Amino acid sequence: MAPPVRALLFDVFGTVVDWRTSVAREVTPFLAEHAPGTDPVEFAAAWRRRYQPAMDAVRSGARPFTRLDILHRENLEAVLADHGIDPAGLEEATLDHLNKAWHRLDPWPDSVEGLRRLKTRFIIAPLSNGNIALMLNLAKRAGLPWDAILGAEVAQAYKPSPAAYLRTAEILGLPPEACMLVAAHNGDLAAARRCGFRTAFIPRPTEYGPDQAKDLLPEQDWDFVAPSFPALADQLGCPPA
Amino acid sequence: MAPPVRALLFDVFGTVVDWRTSVAREVTPFLAEHAPGTDPVEFAAAWRRRYQPAMDAVRSGARPFTRLDILHRENLEAVLADHGIDPAGLEEATLDHLNKAWHRLDPWPDSVEGLRRLKTRFIIAPLSNGNIALMLNLAKRAGLPWDAILGAEVAQAYKPSPAAYLRTAEILGLPPEACMLVAAHNGDLAAARRCGFRTAFIPRPTEYGPDQAKDLLPEQDWDFVAPSFPALADQLGCPPA
Repeated sequence: MAPPVRALLFDVFGTVVDWRTSVAREVTPFLAEHAPGTDPVEFAAAWRRRYQPAMDAVRSGARPFTRLDILHRENLEAVLADHGIDPAGLEEATLDHLNKAWHRLDPWPDSVEGLRRLKTRFIIAPLSNGNIALMLNLAKRAGLPWDAILGAEVAQAYKPSPAAYLRTAEILGLPPEACMLVAAHNGDLAAARRCGFRTAFIPRPTEYGPDQAKDLLPEQDWDFVAPSFPALADQLGCPPA
Repeated sequence: MAPPVRALLFDVFGTVVDWRTSVAREVTPFLAEHAPGTDPVEFAAAWRRRYQPAMDAVRSGARPFTRLDILHRENLEAVLADHGIDPAGLEEATLDHLNKAWHRLDPWPDSVEGLRRLKTRFIIAPLSNGNIALMLNLAKRAGLPWDAILGAEVAQAYKPSPAAYLRTAEILGLPPEACMLVAAHNGDLAAARRCGFRTAFIPRPTEYGPDQAKDLLPEQDWDFVAPSFPALADQLGCPPA
């Protein structure tokens, strides 16, 4: 018999927070000044498109573990250049503030209430590819009541590498079966399941905007499927808010 | 001019929690059964006396980083033997439960209220030699409202090695001067100050019992000296509870 779930580990970008509209909001004043006419939402999406490729160098072992703030910064400079802005012509403080747009992401409207409820029965922590400072600053600003900040930097491995999940369970002193990944992405859940984690799918159908084509539906029989964090809390028997 | 303090990092054993009476309470039923007449407080102190020597092997590089739960377990088996109890004759579940006495330590009476107030103005996190699972389970049970669980396991170095402090600041994305160690131990504060940390001394004059002879008074001109966490919150201008 599987052990009871003790820890809920959360994907964050897309699952807990709305990175797309938040990053767009954060870059809007900069773009208005330096690249008038650029669509901030398109800029955010272009920045995000460089996210997975940047981590691939670490996943493959070609590059030692490098925290996401640094990868985001490299990607930012490339995206600026793609939009005709020379990053070398900008102040360091301007670049750093832009890069930390990822520390200022807004949660989905149900996230905080749901996490508060889930926290009463479970350990709750991010298992994100975001680094510790990013996750901590984001949580502090948004009021996410994590019990700990776990994830890629603590595990020294990027999801979906198995080490990201397995080391997290080991750090918690729990078998993988006592850990459940909560995510809006079927691929992340599939990787977690292969490591023995339980799985909860929370679709976020506008993460990529109104025309989103993927991750609208569960692609496997995940242990739980819920339309929001409070709905997951209901399914898991957590007391009401 | 020094940057403002952004993060308060806390020593935990002795500073936030009363390990001595808590461990004694936790081992009392076991000792009553297996070694009647053994003083639980003396047993706790004997277990604790093996704490610093066990970490020395890691600090010196003789042993790779090994989390505290494992060192505590090795020390437990040695202390049991010292008290005439053969650990090989005990169930694994019994040993594990005893070892996790360190996950069930009670806070000093002022700790939770003080941390809640300090959290409104600062990032608050443990910078303990305790491992992540230990700190997390302890915090969850005691209601310590940490923003993150940092410390030796995240930094992969035991205090007072400089790496324990410097890597913590670096992980937070802060200069050491923006970090303040809060501790009941002059030696810990001295090591943090050598790394550039600000310092706050909170004496805990009964950590080692009524006859405690050390760490009763500040041994340097620490940046702050306060008799409790709420008093520190007052000094740092945090709003009342």
